[in-house]
Amino acid sequence: MARWPRIHLTTGPVDLSPGVLQAAAKPVLYHYDPLFLDLYAETCARLQQIFTTGHDVVILQGEAVLALEAAVVSLISPGDQVLCLISGLYGRGLATLARAVGGVVHELVVPSNSVIHPDDVRRALRRHPDIRVMTVVHVDTPSGTVNPLPQIGDAIAGTEILTIADVVASLGGEPFSPEASGVDIAVAGSQKCLGAPPGLAPVAVSPRAWQAMVRKEAPRGSYCSLLDWKDAWLDHHRFPYAPSVSLIYALHEAAGELLAEGLENRLTGFAAIANACRAAMGSMGLALWPTSNAIASNVVTAVCAPEGVLEADLLAHLRRRYGVVLSRSEGELAGRVFRIGHAPAHPTTLIAGLGLLERSLIDLGYALTPGAGVGAALAALTGWNDSAF
Amino acid sequence: MARWPRIHLTTGPVDLSPGVLQAAAKPVLYHYDPLFLDLYAETCARLQQIFTTGHDVVILQGEAVLALEAAVVSLISPGDQVLCLISGLYGRGLATLARAVGGVVHELVVPSNSVIHPDDVRRALRRHPDIRVMTVVHVDTPSGTVNPLPQIGDAIAGTEILTIADVVASLGGEPFSPEASGVDIAVAGSQKCLGAPPGLAPVAVSPRAWQAMVRKEAPRGSYCSLLDWKDAWLDHHRFPYAPSVSLIYALHEAAGELLAEGLENRLTGFAAIANACRAAMGSMGLALWPTSNAIASNVVTAVCAPEGVLEADLLAHLRRRYGVVLSRSEGELAGRVFRIGHAPAHPTTLIAGLGLLERSLIDLGYALTPGAGVGAALAALTGWNDSAF
Amino acid sequence: MARWPRIHLTTGPVDLSPGVLQAAAKPVLYHYDPLFLDLYAETCARLQQIFTTGHDVVILQGEAVLALEAAVVSLISPGDQVLCLISGLYGRGLATLARAVGGVVHELVVPSNSVIHPDDVRRALRRHPDIRVMTVVHVDTPSGTVNPLPQIGDAIAGTEILTIADVVASLGGEPFSPEASGVDIAVAGSQKCLGAPPGLAPVAVSPRAWQAMVRKEAPRGSYCSLLDWKDAWLDHHRFPYAPSVSLIYALHEAAGELLAEGLENRLTGFAAIANACRAAMGSMGLALWPTSNAIASNVVTAVCAPEGVLEADLLAHLRRRYGVVLSRSEGELAGRVFRIGHAPAHPTTLIAGLGLLERSLIDLGYALTPGAGVGAALAALTGWNDSAF
Amino acid sequence: MARWPRIHLTTGPVDLSPGVLQAAAKPVLYHYDPLFLDLYAETCARLQQIFTTGHDVVILQGEAVLALEAAVVSLISPGDQVLCLISGLYGRGLATLARAVGGVVHELVVPSNSVIHPDDVRRALRRHPDIRVMTVVHVDTPSGTVNPLPQIGDAIAGTEILTIADVVASLGGEPFSPEASGVDIAVAGSQKCLGAPPGLAPVAVSPRAWQAMVRKEAPRGSYCSLLDWKDAWLDHHRFPYAPSVSLIYALHEAAGELLAEGLENRLTGFAAIANACRAAMGSMGLALWPTSNAIASNVVTAVCAPEGVLEADLLAHLRRRYGVVLSRSEGELAGRVFRIGHAPAHPTTLIAGLGLLERSLIDLGYALTPGAGVGAALAALTGWNDSAF
Repeated sequence: MARWPRIHLTTGPVDLSPGVLQAAAKPVLYHYDPLFLDLYAETCARLQQIFTTGHDVVILQGEAVLALEAAVVSLISPGDQVLCLISGLYGRGLATLARAVGGVVHELVVPSNSVIHPDDVRRALRRHPDIRVMTVVHVDTPSGTVNPLPQIGDAIAGTEILTIADVVASLGGEPFSPEASGVDIAVAGSQKCLGAPPGLAPVAVSPRAWQAMVRKEAPRGSYCSLLDWKDAWLDHHRFPYAPSVSLIYALHEAAGELLAEGLENRLTGFAAIANACRAAMGSMGLALWPTSNAIASNVVTAVCAPEGVLEADLLAHLRRRYGVVLSRSEGELAGRVFRIGHAPAHPTTLIAGLGLLERSLIDLGYALTPGAGVGAALAALTGWNDSAF
Repeated sequence: MARWPRIHLTTGPVDLSPGVLQAAAKPVLYHYDPLFLDLYAETCARLQQIFTTGHDVVILQGEAVLALEAAVVSLISPGDQVLCLISGLYGRGLATLARAVGGVVHELVVPSNSVIHPDDVRRALRRHPDIRVMTVVHVDTPSGTVNPLPQIGDAIAGTEILTIADVVASLGGEPFSPEASGVDIAVAGSQKCLGAPPGLAPVAVSPRAWQAMVRKEAPRGSYCSLLDWKDAWLDHHRFPYAPSVSLIYALHEAAGELLAEGLENRLTGFAAIANACRAAMGSMGLALWPTSNAIASNVVTAVCAPEGVLEADLLAHLRRRYGVVLSRSEGELAGRVFRIGHAPAHPTTLIAGLGLLERSLIDLGYALTPGAGVGAALAALTGWNDSAF
Repeated sequence: MARWPRIHLTTGPVDLSPGVLQAAAKPVLYHYDPLFLDLYAETCARLQQIFTTGHDVVILQGEAVLALEAAVVSLISPGDQVLCLISGLYGRGLATLARAVGGVVHELVVPSNSVIHPDDVRRALRRHPDIRVMTVVHVDTPSGTVNPLPQIGDAIAGTEILTIADVVASLGGEPFSPEASGVDIAVAGSQKCLGAPPGLAPVAVSPRAWQAMVRKEAPRGSYCSLLDWKDAWLDHHRFPYAPSVSLIYALHEAAGELLAEGLENRLTGFAAIANACRAAMGSMGLALWPTSNAIASNVVTAVCAPEGVLEADLLAHLRRRYGVVLSRSEGELAGRVFRIGHAPAHPTTLIAGLGLLERSLIDLGYALTPGAGVGAALAALTGWNDSAF
Repeated sequence: MARWPRIHLTTGPVDLSPGVLQAAAKPVLYHYDPLFLDLYAETCARLQQIFTTGHDVVILQGEAVLALEAAVVSLISPGDQVLCLISGLYGRGLATLARAVGGVVHELVVPSNSVIHPDDVRRALRRHPDIRVMTVVHVDTPSGTVNPLPQIGDAIAGTEILTIADVVASLGGEPFSPEASGVDIAVAGSQKCLGAPPGLAPVAVSPRAWQAMVRKEAPRGSYCSLLDWKDAWLDHHRFPYAPSVSLIYALHEAAGELLAEGLENRLTGFAAIANACRAAMGSMGLALWPTSNAIASNVVTAVCAPEGVLEADLLAHLRRRYGVVLSRSEGELAGRVFRIGHAPAHPTTLIAGLGLLERSLIDLGYALTPGAGVGAALAALTGWNDSAF
């Protein structure tokens, strides 16, 4: 029998705080109980703060892919011209969803180790002036890069284009605000930097996105409907169906803990941990997948498996020998890239993970001075201070 | 501030056992961790035992309405002739879903205080020999009735009709087996008699249902897809997306507790509690909504609010004064019928709920000898024995 | 295998709230961590409010008998004249402890179905003017009676007598204040009306009790020392040894919940539940052990087992058949008296317990109209209102 | 407000597994419930396996100091000749306890950075042939040394001397068996290597120790009585008073997890972690307090604070900046020595702690190449394998 793992440095589900885990074990209230209605409303309000938005926030009761699908079916009708910005696997996924509902998709593709340039977006719009909807991924986790959402937002400012942004991996770990990036539907996920269990997808929806949905008679009476949540929750504090009460408890607590520490502090923490991790990789002779640190995400570091070490062997070895779980990459990067997630962003987790990554690489024959990576990370962590949180 | 309620006698979410609540608080494993893969497989195997089936069981990661929608979109194509058996609100809901995907719906409707008669099904089939799909609800909770699924199954035996059965409210509380009732897709819900939190929908799918889905190219790459779960989980032990790990823990534990007590014991327990509850209603001068005890469900008792007492007032009073939560009815019965859920089926909960229902009715001016209902329930509980579980 | 019980109507350990149970599962802090020091101090402050006292409160890290022993060894020296008020088993226990440390014990004994009369105390003092210490039990649970502490306090007012009061069963369920009763050392227990797990004993100590201990060089450097806690905790916020961190979490939460509901509300609730319980016993033809309702405690009702029913059989039957746990009595009352504990004082628990007590009595051949007891309890519960808490 | 700490590398209370924490939150059973009696008996049986003994095991319901006091008052009478082996603070503590009960104490003292030599014991016995009781501490945590219990046992083999051994810090982390070391009363603590919360003290008692207690009429009817537990639990499966149910749950689970992993595996793990830790200290230029690795304990490493760094500053800095908790030393070593606890013995915790210890030392001005300590620890961890557990 395998031993239970000790730490996860993954792209999600991530390790949760004791308080969040315990919240999931509270007795299940009837969803129309006054206590639950208050708690649910407070959860949405907390998420609004984390989204840094005045837009409505609704919570779809499923994994983030549910909300991405809901966003696409709610905004895109057959024949709609759609610009899909693709810098990785999830960008491509949104294009697939858009095509599935009949959208006429124009792809702006860059290599998965780079990011979208706003000027390319401007060029694409000039070529296709009838674009109605744009899709973009903030952090495309398989490649560990972060697209410059505010600059991309500037590129479409003044147009009527509706933007769907996948901020699943980034919300709570990278700075983001729908208004600051001109995003109409921003889709997050509970099990990433928000620090809650998987199974919920918070979505921030702009007023003009709601208007567009009503106008085009977007789906109602479906699990993939966003309008159902506007009709029910936003307009009448009703639910389309019983929400996942236990998960809402956990998300409520996770959002509360995040805000108690301060969103700014959390973001600073992610940046510091990611910076230390990148320093460690350099010292260990490991190349990052992104072409530069400037475009590398703060929520996940994508690393090229070194010559002679199979990524699958490395991860299995880390899990079995040392109880440390890292993430594989996906798609074309599977087998070539492994990933170190940075939530919950804390030096103890990072140092433990880096140390045993070193140990595992050595076990598998990679030449490395033990402590090289950890030493570089420690050297980079000069400013850390738990008391600031 | 309201005090936290003490007991729920609702139609769901129901009160969970301490073990199930605690299971939801276990550390979240990466979904491809070997420990989680084993636990997930074991959860499916336990559900198969509870479904009393050799059919595949997959677990959709959302409320039961997700799985009902998935069943409908997976089996019904535009133009398909569909027979919808309607004895209540949820029967009507399936007809709505069937129409939404282009099904040509034939309704067999009976009043909501009665149940479907198999001969009526036979007659409907003779009138519409080209029926491809039939939908039926086992226990239509708003009306508290239980349709005779095995007899209805007999009525279509030998045909090619594919049957979708909503057993959301009944699984684990009323006897059911897909094979014994000729059911091809049976949809359950975690938060009812299974005794787990809301947010998961176990589905039992027959081989010929899978074949039909493949043949008609049912949806893939969607949150509402059943085939995604066949392709991923059943065929390769992969997931279409991160499952709700914490909820799976809870469902795994709930199913384990149920089987440890014994499915037969649980069903007997529900029957005994429902019987005692019906006896109490009689002694309290309250009429059941179903026309006879023979068609009344064992998982919920639907009761007509007495003359002079508003159902909404009664339920609010019970909640605020005594911390007891009963369920309202829905649709046309809203305001006229209230419901006493029977999970977890145990005399302590029933007696407490009945006693404070008596107290509340008296508080609201209803003439009643205190103890009349509880006394009748106690008299009916002769055979109860916790040690048998 | 026995099924887990459903409800406890015992004299302790009592059923705990979900929040208190969860508190015990919080990660264990180092006892000198600043977070724990704050939480510990806050726990003591909350206990002071519940003791309604300005006296110091220390928490001995063991069952209440530890603190009773500590009180006796701390105040009584060999040769000291001690007046022990004995109306039941625990009163006698204090006399035994007093003798064990060399006290010259004078017993004031009344039958266990009655209580101490203040005039008897006055008379005893006149007979033994050199009494230095008096011991008294507030609620002697085996007999379900409550001694009139304030009146007993009046009887010794103006003397130098130091009083040790056992309020283990009563604190949080019966009105009590050391100052109002002239009590110098009041010993409570976590697992009774305070609603926390067993293993902690809060003690309120008057200034003159501390002075007496210092003067007589009461034990130090011992698990039974009270002075160790004064020297360490009160004077320097240090601990004599590692406290039971998990239990402190639970007691902190339990005390917080109690104060959030309001001590007055809790006491009123106990009174209402006890009153309803006594009404039920009357209607069921069962005699209380105390000679009158006026001296019956609000935290436990002691009932004479009826002719023909063995108390042991009754309790075993209730536990095995219905998952309901009542308490046996002890000492000379064992086998003749059973007891219904009233914490946590709530109608749902009471009604469930009474109903299944009725059912069990009938199962065992006692003649009873089902519902008689519950009906009387319901009739008596007119004023209950959860919203007031 | 301080942030909750991330990891404890302390001498106790130690970080607990999620399963142990959750066990403490299970509903509190009545202590004579059949389910609890079984669980309690199983806990004792598990502890016997961990003690590697055929002796009786009883569990005192308090911190380990309670059981040390109970051992002393149970075996030592006024005038008894007692040999106290003192290699550190806790050894001295036992001498104090022995004197407090009137024992005539002969001290065998060695410096706190060394251990007792069996030949010195032989010499002491020759000088004092009337020794009745010997006391010894296995691991005297303030100094991080481990006394050679089996060899010390050999030195008194064949005598009638009764030995009290304090194995509080060592049980579950260092090899120990009462029989192999001639120990009559071995006192452990729940919150150290056993991995449970503080508040329980398992004690293994030899038959001849019980005989001696009966003969000398050791205390009964006291919280410090061992005989009470023999009379009640061992002889009649009764309790002297309500045990700490929640803590027993946790200890039951912790002992179960330990045995599931295997006692041998656990001990090997502690040895490996301690070895790696000592290697790290060497590479960091830090001196251990024990004079040689051969006498250094596997459960805690005592380290001399380097020139120019105050131990108190270092520990406060680690806690506040990085959420890492180490232990101070005590007594004469306070301020000069800090300690790294090794439970739960796992590389992730060790590496994280060492890394942030490095970082903290650098922050405070100590000259150190970042990664030096972690690198040495990693190099030493070649044989680690979670899968072996």
